[in-house]
Amino acid sequence: MPLLSYKVKIIIMNDKIDTEKNKMWGGRFSAGASAVMDAINVSIDVDKKLYAQDIQTSLAHCAMLAETGIITDEDAAQMCAGLNEISAEIASGEFTFSRQLEDIHMNIEQALTQKIGASAGRLHTARSRNDQVATDFRLYIRDAIDELQQNYQTLLKVILVRAEQHTESVMAGFTHLQTAQPVTLGHHLMAYFEMFARDSERFADCRKRVNHSPLGAAALAGTSFPIDRQMVAQTLGFDGVMKNSLDAVSARDFVMEFLGVAVIAATHFSRLAEEFVLWSSVQFGYCRIDDSFTSGSSIMPQKKNPDAAELVRAKSGRILGDFITLAHVMKALPLAYSKDMQEDKPPLFDAYDALVLMQKAMIGMLEGMVFYPEKMLQDLQKGFPEATDFADWLVQKLNIPFRDAHHITGEAVALAEKKQCRLIDLSLSELQTFHSDISDDVYAVLDVKRAVETRTSFGGTAPARVREAIKQAKASLS
Amino acid sequence: MPLLSYKVKIIIMNDKIDTEKNKMWGGRFSAGASAVMDAINVSIDVDKKLYAQDIQTSLAHCAMLAETGIITDEDAAQMCAGLNEISAEIASGEFTFSRQLEDIHMNIEQALTQKIGASAGRLHTARSRNDQVATDFRLYIRDAIDELQQNYQTLLKVILVRAEQHTESVMAGFTHLQTAQPVTLGHHLMAYFEMFARDSERFADCRKRVNHSPLGAAALAGTSFPIDRQMVAQTLGFDGVMKNSLDAVSARDFVMEFLGVAVIAATHFSRLAEEFVLWSSVQFGYCRIDDSFTSGSSIMPQKKNPDAAELVRAKSGRILGDFITLAHVMKALPLAYSKDMQEDKPPLFDAYDALVLMQKAMIGMLEGMVFYPEKMLQDLQKGFPEATDFADWLVQKLNIPFRDAHHITGEAVALAEKKQCRLIDLSLSELQTFHSDISDDVYAVLDVKRAVETRTSFGGTAPARVREAIKQAKASLS
Amino acid sequence: MPLLSYKVKIIIMNDKIDTEKNKMWGGRFSAGASAVMDAINVSIDVDKKLYAQDIQTSLAHCAMLAETGIITDEDAAQMCAGLNEISAEIASGEFTFSRQLEDIHMNIEQALTQKIGASAGRLHTARSRNDQVATDFRLYIRDAIDELQQNYQTLLKVILVRAEQHTESVMAGFTHLQTAQPVTLGHHLMAYFEMFARDSERFADCRKRVNHSPLGAAALAGTSFPIDRQMVAQTLGFDGVMKNSLDAVSARDFVMEFLGVAVIAATHFSRLAEEFVLWSSVQFGYCRIDDSFTSGSSIMPQKKNPDAAELVRAKSGRILGDFITLAHVMKALPLAYSKDMQEDKPPLFDAYDALVLMQKAMIGMLEGMVFYPEKMLQDLQKGFPEATDFADWLVQKLNIPFRDAHHITGEAVALAEKKQCRLIDLSLSELQTFHSDISDDVYAVLDVKRAVETRTSFGGTAPARVREAIKQAKASLS
Amino acid sequence: MPLLSYKVKIIIMNDKIDTEKNKMWGGRFSAGASAVMDAINVSIDVDKKLYAQDIQTSLAHCAMLAETGIITDEDAAQMCAGLNEISAEIASGEFTFSRQLEDIHMNIEQALTQKIGASAGRLHTARSRNDQVATDFRLYIRDAIDELQQNYQTLLKVILVRAEQHTESVMAGFTHLQTAQPVTLGHHLMAYFEMFARDSERFADCRKRVNHSPLGAAALAGTSFPIDRQMVAQTLGFDGVMKNSLDAVSARDFVMEFLGVAVIAATHFSRLAEEFVLWSSVQFGYCRIDDSFTSGSSIMPQKKNPDAAELVRAKSGRILGDFITLAHVMKALPLAYSKDMQEDKPPLFDAYDALVLMQKAMIGMLEGMVFYPEKMLQDLQKGFPEATDFADWLVQKLNIPFRDAHHITGEAVALAEKKQCRLIDLSLSELQTFHSDISDDVYAVLDVKRAVETRTSFGGTAPARVREAIKQAKASLS
Repeated sequence: MPLLSYKVKIIIMNDKIDTEKNKMWGGRFSAGASAVMDAINVSIDVDKKLYAQDIQTSLAHCAMLAETGIITDEDAAQMCAGLNEISAEIASGEFTFSRQLEDIHMNIEQALTQKIGASAGRLHTARSRNDQVATDFRLYIRDAIDELQQNYQTLLKVILVRAEQHTESVMAGFTHLQTAQPVTLGHHLMAYFEMFARDSERFADCRKRVNHSPLGAAALAGTSFPIDRQMVAQTLGFDGVMKNSLDAVSARDFVMEFLGVAVIAATHFSRLAEEFVLWSSVQFGYCRIDDSFTSGSSIMPQKKNPDAAELVRAKSGRILGDFITLAHVMKALPLAYSKDMQEDKPPLFDAYDALVLMQKAMIGMLEGMVFYPEKMLQDLQKGFPEATDFADWLVQKLNIPFRDAHHITGEAVALAEKKQCRLIDLSLSELQTFHSDISDDVYAVLDVKRAVETRTSFGGTAPARVREAIKQAKASLS
Repeated sequence: MPLLSYKVKIIIMNDKIDTEKNKMWGGRFSAGASAVMDAINVSIDVDKKLYAQDIQTSLAHCAMLAETGIITDEDAAQMCAGLNEISAEIASGEFTFSRQLEDIHMNIEQALTQKIGASAGRLHTARSRNDQVATDFRLYIRDAIDELQQNYQTLLKVILVRAEQHTESVMAGFTHLQTAQPVTLGHHLMAYFEMFARDSERFADCRKRVNHSPLGAAALAGTSFPIDRQMVAQTLGFDGVMKNSLDAVSARDFVMEFLGVAVIAATHFSRLAEEFVLWSSVQFGYCRIDDSFTSGSSIMPQKKNPDAAELVRAKSGRILGDFITLAHVMKALPLAYSKDMQEDKPPLFDAYDALVLMQKAMIGMLEGMVFYPEKMLQDLQKGFPEATDFADWLVQKLNIPFRDAHHITGEAVALAEKKQCRLIDLSLSELQTFHSDISDDVYAVLDVKRAVETRTSFGGTAPARVREAIKQAKASLS
Repeated sequence: MPLLSYKVKIIIMNDKIDTEKNKMWGGRFSAGASAVMDAINVSIDVDKKLYAQDIQTSLAHCAMLAETGIITDEDAAQMCAGLNEISAEIASGEFTFSRQLEDIHMNIEQALTQKIGASAGRLHTARSRNDQVATDFRLYIRDAIDELQQNYQTLLKVILVRAEQHTESVMAGFTHLQTAQPVTLGHHLMAYFEMFARDSERFADCRKRVNHSPLGAAALAGTSFPIDRQMVAQTLGFDGVMKNSLDAVSARDFVMEFLGVAVIAATHFSRLAEEFVLWSSVQFGYCRIDDSFTSGSSIMPQKKNPDAAELVRAKSGRILGDFITLAHVMKALPLAYSKDMQEDKPPLFDAYDALVLMQKAMIGMLEGMVFYPEKMLQDLQKGFPEATDFADWLVQKLNIPFRDAHHITGEAVALAEKKQCRLIDLSLSELQTFHSDISDDVYAVLDVKRAVETRTSFGGTAPARVREAIKQAKASLS
Repeated sequence: MPLLSYKVKIIIMNDKIDTEKNKMWGGRFSAGASAVMDAINVSIDVDKKLYAQDIQTSLAHCAMLAETGIITDEDAAQMCAGLNEISAEIASGEFTFSRQLEDIHMNIEQALTQKIGASAGRLHTARSRNDQVATDFRLYIRDAIDELQQNYQTLLKVILVRAEQHTESVMAGFTHLQTAQPVTLGHHLMAYFEMFARDSERFADCRKRVNHSPLGAAALAGTSFPIDRQMVAQTLGFDGVMKNSLDAVSARDFVMEFLGVAVIAATHFSRLAEEFVLWSSVQFGYCRIDDSFTSGSSIMPQKKNPDAAELVRAKSGRILGDFITLAHVMKALPLAYSKDMQEDKPPLFDAYDALVLMQKAMIGMLEGMVFYPEKMLQDLQKGFPEATDFADWLVQKLNIPFRDAHHITGEAVALAEKKQCRLIDLSLSELQTFHSDISDDVYAVLDVKRAVETRTSFGGTAPARVREAIKQAKASLS
């Protein structure tokens, strides 16, 4: 049978580097291949974070093996007791992880064997590390999402409280970082409510796809043991089981999706963090970040560096990097499991930790922040924000086409700028030089506070509208 | 009124580069500031792709303005007619786009003015380019998703057809690109069915968030005109209106989400494309890609380069790059609109075009592909894929602990390797040297075809299971 | 000879989708495989940008073939004339590119055949498209670097001119966007001189590696024709020839390096652009960007949106995306040429175009920018920038340990803040309450203008130092 | 003096969240702001890696302060002794790092104070943490580059040894993973020599820019103390001092450049790793990776998973992610120091560690790898690699135009394929049916071993050429 014919070439195996012949190069170059392999291959330092999920998975698997008669109830009871002991030891810090056992699965399996003897080996019946790690990791990410969602609830509530305090605080709505039109601070904060709410929704959608059980796929092909995958899934709180065993062990899109959603969430945080940095500068002076989130200078006691805001902004870089890392790792990997996939956990753990910190820092900063609406108003009035309202009045009251109204407004603003005053400070006769039909009641819309009140379209900045939006948002949360 | 006090410094404006004084440097350096600004600023070459959506948006806005009495029915009728004419002109290629008018909105508005005169200006009442472009772009992406979904339907069907043909074609299930256990080609293909189905589901989730109307947010603050945002949203097929006007014009997470989902989808395509490249190599010889998707060599007629598969694999790079581009653009942008956001369209258009091509190339390659199951089987048998089954038999029939069974199996494989044969080719007495209780019926599980049939756990590779999975998948599609 | 034994499986080729059997699925799904392949495969729309380099390469190759006697002088003369004609036609826009001929090489080769007949075929002797495109692309990038370098020269000169005008304009040196210590605007601008100079240096280093000739590697293995690679390299201005033919056609690190360097350069531009956006806001009021690089509002004539600065900032995203694209494309590609590499050109072209625009926009903005040093000074004085100088005086004159000096300074600043004045406005007796040895001459260092003058360490902000730095920088440029 | 007028708004500071009023929301949300700030802000866990460099920097600064008379020699001697003690304590693991002291600089400064008292404070004269950390980090990266360079030397030598063993081992040169033309394994390995040599060159270029001293820039503006920056730079082995103090503390392009170069290097490693994975598959069977770099299966003793190669391939993802992280962090940061920059160290440390592992794993794998040239040759002959040589012979000997020669070759290959034989197996009369002038001496070029020998162009695959290249490469290393 020449089936393995290519193997005959093994006889030329002595073509490895011959240290005698290559003395000029100093013989073998690599000292300690095993140390290198150990350093690149061992994952226990990273995947020990999964210990709780790994034990949870084993308990559910064990219960199912007993229920289906694959192992005896006695074996199951022993395993169960042993696993719970191990769990307690790890939680209390007594457990010693061994790098020689490579990963969290082997560390726990070995500990179980020491506790209950060889029968521990039966726990691994009808499963493999491939489906086991996929299950652990899905449970971990599900827990991560649940924690993030709880923090989002808090964050959204804080925004509502702060927005409610400032439904009448008038400030510049910016475009291009230039004053565009007057809005309220409450309205501005509610824009972030919307963004964060969508981020939370995306995590919820992600959770749906995370929450399917790969356990029972075994190495990759399923198994001939009469297992009950649905039972395990139910025990572990999964919504269902994955339908294809090859997919179950090969898929990492659930990790990529988490990271992709995290990138978007981090982008929103970076936008708000940027505003905090700008607003707390001397030049803006729109807010004061609480001391607990700033650092000072022993020499300049008035100086308050917005460290937490800067770090929130910066950590968006980590999360983006984490997403790229995994996308690059997964590119063009043939099915099913490849060792490359071991590199899926560091980016996930890193991004999750960073995102939780960003949430908490934002909650804390928003809670303790002092806003300075007077400075906001003062800046606003430098920017002729009432120009749009003047133009709209011309359209609505005098029926002047939009583009013509713009032209007239431009002339009026130019005059005001020349006189270094606001539009409202121009006399009626001055205004009438631009269009003779302009009447006294134009002054009502030239007051920025009044102007804000007129933006009553749905979603607009009028205080009444914003209060309504807050009310509905509250209802959606509770 | 010292409101604008900093303006007094304008008197030192002559501190610009004095060309007289700086003759040694050759006077002014920049020739043609306007040409540079034009090159960096003008977007019509890119955003003309939005023309259909822009006109659709204007028609809906126009109808609402008339319905709410903000403009007259006569004006509305004229605008409507004019817009439809422009639409036809662009579609037929008669329309001349002007770079001086910068973007698609101004090009169309100007054309409308030429057709119906100054009253065209009224169309822009109660809206701005900020909410207009956001609306156009959301409509475009919604259409893009709908096309992608249609292609996914086709792709999923093609997979089902091919998988059904190969539920009995036994091949190696790989881990680390090494033979692990026998699976079927049908089972392998169905793993991709699952991945693509999740991708499609992610696009559906993305669509939910895309499909909300920003129109009526105006520049950023809403408007004092008595508009009806819900009516416009309904006309345009939106599921609802965005609740905060600042968010409506500032948000680009809907674009980021599309791109993030596209990255995941592209990663899946890159994995299948990699397999096509590998499988069509001389060394694998598992498949033949249809001529229409390969290129040849005039000199080596037998050579078939898998160009389409390679390009599908490569285009995952573009899509990843596109996502990064937008994430980087959006980082730390304060509210509301900044010009940076103009850079949102090139990556979206690029990724969408690439993804559609990837889908179509995959559909075409899968349809026309010839598989070679005999070579698959031949390779499989070199790899002792029956080893796991032998071990499982020892556990199940002789009640030997899992880890011991592994040890026995290792010895048996070593003997077979030495004899250059398969496990099934060893005599019973040879096998019994490893464990005396091994009996004749072990041979049943040592046949890879039989072995495949025993993997009957849910999601496993047993032909019956795969046929069941295909049946359910068909039902889910139709 | 059973060499090609696996080929026998071709007999089961009819396992493609059988349209009869699969009627329920609507027969063949893919309409027009060729259209799909065309869309994904054809590169002429992109690579026609290489036409000048392609002809240049062919001319050099042709001359060498004649010189070495591989082709006749008559053939060479004809080819040469033909290629020059084609070059002129393309330059003038008369040339019609054909998508059926796929790429720039085939388009030109076909045109040459039409001009001079079948002997055109000899031009392709001893080369292939693999080494040809690598050569063209290296020439293109070399030209690109040369243009970028020229622009850097201009940019650096503009900075010198502007810095020289402002060696005495005192402003806040920021940390955390908070006032830290006084610096001068000239000093601040010179920081960018350093960054841009390093970027230019990186491009020069990149050019060294780009500028080696792959031509003569043929498809991948070299050739048996007696070619003279050094001669071709010299003709084309290369510094040398690539030493390994497989590497010559497989390497794309020269493109990656260009893009990596471009990312760093773009990051520097994004930092300066951010400062322009901030500084031109009403809140900062530090500069006015020339009208030619801003857009206005018809309605708010005073509003000047810093569009060009925002777009420079945003385009850093494109360049980062371009780098990722290529890194992702090249990941894990086995040697030698794979079709994936066709995706190397779009990111390079895109990044190069973007970077040139960024340079030109920066040159133009810097040239025309008006700075407002009075506002800079005014803001500076709000921030107690003299605190460090006060502390340093305590250390230097009274020999107080650094940390104690900080404490004293903190107390003095606290008093000044309470009195809403500067440190210099405190009386000597007030100061002496913090330390009795404080003497009258402390006031000299409390004047921010004087303070700036004392920072005379090498590279420091003292006007004399900055003037010296400018002088040396000028010398380095000319 | 209304200088600080905006401060008056502090009176409305009580607008923070009022826990009484907001009982429905549960009062204050954030428990423990300080714990959050601590978690996001403290860097000691990361930057303690810089301890050796930090002490080195302090020693050099201390010596300079004494030399210039800024501190006394007694103070300097004490500091020096104290710092050396601390260094020894950290090295031996006795030192206890405190999170309350935030970073490595404060930990060491505090320890020094405990050892030598308050005079320790004088060490911080004329410097700040901003220039200190930039100096430490540059020293660290310089050391990192030096280690990488040493590893590159080893790696390049290993390649030379292996290539020299295989200058005559004929294998397929691939394009599109399809057999294209015969090359030798030695030639193939030498392609990687070229790539790695360029990577090493890029790190050398990077080192030039890293190796400039920022120390003496102080916080950002320089200092009034009469320091000697050149002296410090010389002591620390820097090539020069940075010329602008703002740039000195703001620049992170030296880190970005390191990471960009690392991405390119990692891409090359991923390409070779991919080949190892492919080549060690059953289907290719071109090599056997030494057991020390593979993992096995207890159940399938013949199975050797190429774990190290897969992890090398995967780690390219981490490095790409690290580059993106920093590029994203640095985007649009205004000068000078911002806290965001604290996020520069984690990606650098991560990428450096990963790259060293990749180098070592590659060295080890190359050293211990067994190649199977017979299988390489066997596969080669399935692919008609002699086709190009046949065509070239037609051109050179019969003076047939290139494209016609291709056509004839195609016909000959088609006949050979039909007969399932090689071209060399066709009879002369069979060959003459394609062109009557074909003569007996064509058979010389149809032997792939002979064909390889004829590719004698510079850089070509002919064994003589490759031996020459190896010889020159050896000379370049020693």
